[in-house]
Amino acid sequence: MTTSAVSPAEREAMRRAVELAGTRLGRTSPNPVVGCVVLAPDGTVVGEGFHKGAGHPHAEPEALAAAGDRARGATAVVTLEPCAHTGRTGPCADALLRAGVARVLYAVPDPNPGAAGGAERLRAAGVEVVGDVLREEAERVNELWLTAIRRGRPCVTWKFGGTLDGRSAAPDGTSRWITGPAAREDAHRLRASHDAVLVGSGTLRADDPHLGLRHGVPGEPPLRVVLDRTGSIPPGARVLDDTAPTLVAVGDSAPKPQLPGGHEVLVLPETGGRLDPAVLLDELYGRGLRSVLLEGGARLAADFAGRGLLDRVVAYVAPMLLGSGGRAVLDGFGAGTLTEGLRLHLDEVRRLGDDVRMVLRGRPLPGAREER
Amino acid sequence: MTTSAVSPAEREAMRRAVELAGTRLGRTSPNPVVGCVVLAPDGTVVGEGFHKGAGHPHAEPEALAAAGDRARGATAVVTLEPCAHTGRTGPCADALLRAGVARVLYAVPDPNPGAAGGAERLRAAGVEVVGDVLREEAERVNELWLTAIRRGRPCVTWKFGGTLDGRSAAPDGTSRWITGPAAREDAHRLRASHDAVLVGSGTLRADDPHLGLRHGVPGEPPLRVVLDRTGSIPPGARVLDDTAPTLVAVGDSAPKPQLPGGHEVLVLPETGGRLDPAVLLDELYGRGLRSVLLEGGARLAADFAGRGLLDRVVAYVAPMLLGSGGRAVLDGFGAGTLTEGLRLHLDEVRRLGDDVRMVLRGRPLPGAREER
Repeated sequence: MTTSAVSPAEREAMRRAVELAGTRLGRTSPNPVVGCVVLAPDGTVVGEGFHKGAGHPHAEPEALAAAGDRARGATAVVTLEPCAHTGRTGPCADALLRAGVARVLYAVPDPNPGAAGGAERLRAAGVEVVGDVLREEAERVNELWLTAIRRGRPCVTWKFGGTLDGRSAAPDGTSRWITGPAAREDAHRLRASHDAVLVGSGTLRADDPHLGLRHGVPGEPPLRVVLDRTGSIPPGARVLDDTAPTLVAVGDSAPKPQLPGGHEVLVLPETGGRLDPAVLLDELYGRGLRSVLLEGGARLAADFAGRGLLDRVVAYVAPMLLGSGGRAVLDGFGAGTLTEGLRLHLDEVRRLGDDVRMVLRGRPLPGAREER
Repeated sequence: MTTSAVSPAEREAMRRAVELAGTRLGRTSPNPVVGCVVLAPDGTVVGEGFHKGAGHPHAEPEALAAAGDRARGATAVVTLEPCAHTGRTGPCADALLRAGVARVLYAVPDPNPGAAGGAERLRAAGVEVVGDVLREEAERVNELWLTAIRRGRPCVTWKFGGTLDGRSAAPDGTSRWITGPAAREDAHRLRASHDAVLVGSGTLRADDPHLGLRHGVPGEPPLRVVLDRTGSIPPGARVLDDTAPTLVAVGDSAPKPQLPGGHEVLVLPETGGRLDPAVLLDELYGRGLRSVLLEGGARLAADFAGRGLLDRVVAYVAPMLLGSGGRAVLDGFGAGTLTEGLRLHLDEVRRLGDDVRMVLRGRPLPGAREER
């Protein structure tokens, strides 16, 4: 595969395809977000499409339909390798062949064993195929889904707000507000891009969070998930209101809590008196969820970190010192010596109002340039 | 005062004057860094000068000497209000008058009660005077000195390196290296710009730091200061080598430690079995020191923070998690509730290798634009 023959118009088309994919972030699970642009031989755009979500056509047939006859001899530019499998819609590789495209550019190889092989099928039929075009940008827009498919469980992002000295609350529990309005609004956009929001019972008791979308952030509210081993959730908890469904995961030794309509209790096996976060993630994956945002819960975060289950961290750091009496942002985890610490990869740092937002990853993004 | 009449050439000259001042950072105490540029009426530069340090001429006479006769009718552009007092050199205001300059632009009013009045004296003599020109840039280059004069004690900067979750070492004390080489080199440049480097006896025992300049950083090594109430410093401590002088501050109940030649013991009064950092700062100020870099010492930093003695914080945050067993970057301080936390002002955030550097201040810089 070479990208040397990719024209500026084709790169621009891939940028647009990534943009189209991004418009559906958080609304396509269990499917990825995908965008497609069809270019006539002279480089003009003759069709655009994106995947709206499960039950809707893939991005390629959408763009091909928009292009009509102009797809013949054209170049299809798509953010993800066209699929070769027959799902609700036929294989996209076949649709591209039927439409008579001469050339296909894609950014990210399909990591899904059941869907891969599209590039090969197209090449075998005589279509010119180039992969890895603007791969980093396309990996980025699809990061949650790609991570989920690669790991076989939902992508887990830990989001926290804290002080410069790593405290999420004062000794008396006060924490409103450590970070400013710009950071809090950004956190709501982060929530909207995830399939589920997860908190532990400690956070539930301390903060009684609602976990819905505020600040006028558009989008579907994510599934609210509470990890509550002892089933102690109070019936009046705000997370049990009727604005979105809530899943309460309890241990198999706990009494099953009675929840208002629309919410569900999930019973998980306890091992040594604890719930294994990996079992919860398996269950969520089986239900088609591809991304989980871990919010609050310094002990829960430590539990995930200790089991290697943190894929991403989004930290909002406030210009404030609370001192060692304050509550630690990460409670537990238990590195005994420096080499046991969890090294992350800094992807992005920027000012957000008076605060600093950092985005970090457990592993570097495939196709990422070194940012120094 | 108005800045509306300042020409682009004059602004550029002030930028250059700030640059000239910056070349002497860390080498002029007890004096400020000052730069001066003389512009002919057509805007060409006819003289430049800067203050080399105590015992050397001020910036204005240096620049006037370089300009010679061309100073007559010219504009003098200087980073700090010209002085009106007679020190080792005569008042700079008088030197400017004798040279026949027609116009004087300065950035920062002289905060020193003994030296102020220069602008007034020049105006009274018929010279056109404009203040506050590029004030933020000039405040920034002279920040340590200006803070010291305004507070009547050395400017205190706390520098620390830590993990994203606020830890400076693992439970077993290992900390090499949490931050990367770019951050460590930057920290050495920070050291070179300060008059003194201060550590507590805990850091001395744990790390046996040298506190000199490494990484090929040029400049005079700062005075090394150890706050060692019990006088327990071992004679073989690296900080007692002969590369720079060291001051060991002990309590008045402690045995006076025997130090190798070139180093000094300073006895400070103990109050309730503790040393008051403010007393040490008074002593250092009296010796002409205007800036102190607090390095390491999570308890010492908390002591300074709790007494309102932190003017600036430079934090190097590594993309790493160590968990709550790790050593806290700030040990103590004791805010009981959120409103008792120490709110800082974020001045700068940037990536430095794999780490993030944040510069924060206790108060915003005078003349600073809002950075959002």
